[in-house]
Amino acid sequence: MTKLTYEQPLNEKTRSFLRLEYLSQQLQTNVEQDHQHRCFYPLFSLCELTERCDYRGEVLNDLDKKITTLSNWQSLPHIDTIQVEAYLNRLITAKESLQACDRPGAKLKQDRFIAALRQRFNMPGACCNFDLPQLHYWLAKPWDVRQQEYLQWVDNFTALLNPINLLLELTRQTTQYCETVAKVGFFQGNSNQALSMVRVKIDSQQGCYPTISGHKNRYAIHFVQFDEQKHSDQTIEFQLATCT
Amino acid sequence: MTKLTYEQPLNEKTRSFLRLEYLSQQLQTNVEQDHQHRCFYPLFSLCELTERCDYRGEVLNDLDKKITTLSNWQSLPHIDTIQVEAYLNRLITAKESLQACDRPGAKLKQDRFIAALRQRFNMPGACCNFDLPQLHYWLAKPWDVRQQEYLQWVDNFTALLNPINLLLELTRQTTQYCETVAKVGFFQGNSNQALSMVRVKIDSQQGCYPTISGHKNRYAIHFVQFDEQKHSDQTIEFQLATCT
Repeated sequence: MTKLTYEQPLNEKTRSFLRLEYLSQQLQTNVEQDHQHRCFYPLFSLCELTERCDYRGEVLNDLDKKITTLSNWQSLPHIDTIQVEAYLNRLITAKESLQACDRPGAKLKQDRFIAALRQRFNMPGACCNFDLPQLHYWLAKPWDVRQQEYLQWVDNFTALLNPINLLLELTRQTTQYCETVAKVGFFQGNSNQALSMVRVKIDSQQGCYPTISGHKNRYAIHFVQFDEQKHSDQTIEFQLATCT
Repeated sequence: MTKLTYEQPLNEKTRSFLRLEYLSQQLQTNVEQDHQHRCFYPLFSLCELTERCDYRGEVLNDLDKKITTLSNWQSLPHIDTIQVEAYLNRLITAKESLQACDRPGAKLKQDRFIAALRQRFNMPGACCNFDLPQLHYWLAKPWDVRQQEYLQWVDNFTALLNPINLLLELTRQTTQYCETVAKVGFFQGNSNQALSMVRVKIDSQQGCYPTISGHKNRYAIHFVQFDEQKHSDQTIEFQLATCT
């Protein structure tokens, strides 16, 4: 039995954050294991996203809000002050690092090796030997050398990605899963509070995946049978969490 | 000591063939080992290239030429008739398969799962959980199941890729490596016969890679120091093969 978790952002900010978190996880797998030239895909995606949009202001804003909320919690009774304190420290450290850093990815733009690769990577089949002999050379370096170089490139984004991962961790903790049932493959919900994320946990044995849509206070979940690629007409049991 | 081989096509046809051969090797690594969502990059590159251009006519033409050449060789004295016969059989089989097949990739275009993924894969960071819940579902299938499905997708291109790999194998066999020296990091050559490919083999300890340019009868090789990313001014020993 494999339980799979699907997450849907209900606002633009959470959408961006989830995308950046996903790329951050991809970078991590490439740091841990040699994925050859494939390690550049998430790196270049991050370059592109951070060139299009400077996320720092938005992230700093969110960090400030969380710091205020958690500081207020500290005076409440029955609160786990040690845990709150630990999160506060992480938030403050993340904020300081982000304030101190240059625009993420700016340095990487100056790297001639990276720039040459980026130009090519979007074209189909264009990391051939003859397109990029420098890549062919680089890939023949020992893995521990490449790993160190990759870590340095990744480090350009650490100050941005760490607080995003932390903010999403806190978002996910705002609520717990409830057992839920979708009749004829469909479930609809609403909330008085503005939601930022809907999470669905479902056993993959049921043979379907959810497509979730929504905005702030309303959301709908359609379950799709994977094999037929069509809407399910079954009663589907799943776990639901709606995060603010 | 790691000897690296760099290959440069000297005509458009060889350029296409080398690119397709590279993608064919990428598919193979994805068949042998689980590379998660990364396995789709070379598959979609192949889809795109074969949609832009139907390579079958060019490949069949080349197969016919080689079959004629090798048939003529059979009557020559001192020829390894067993090897020639083996190649002839492979060429004829490859030709028959290619003639019998539909346009490569045409069937894959009808696959709704593949079509949904392709739409997204070019966007930065767009194979997130919420962009493609069906991919999240698919990746949770056991590797042996995914492997079988991947093999079926790859099989759409087998009839095209097999003869290309075979033709390039024969091209590489038209000549042998000679020990060569580039003075001040530069070497220039020419040939009476039209060349299709220049191959450079060099020890990576020398710290440089070649950038090769040329067309049919002339070619130039510039060696670039990887660390400085600038033209080498050293005397560089390498092995050179020029294939017709």
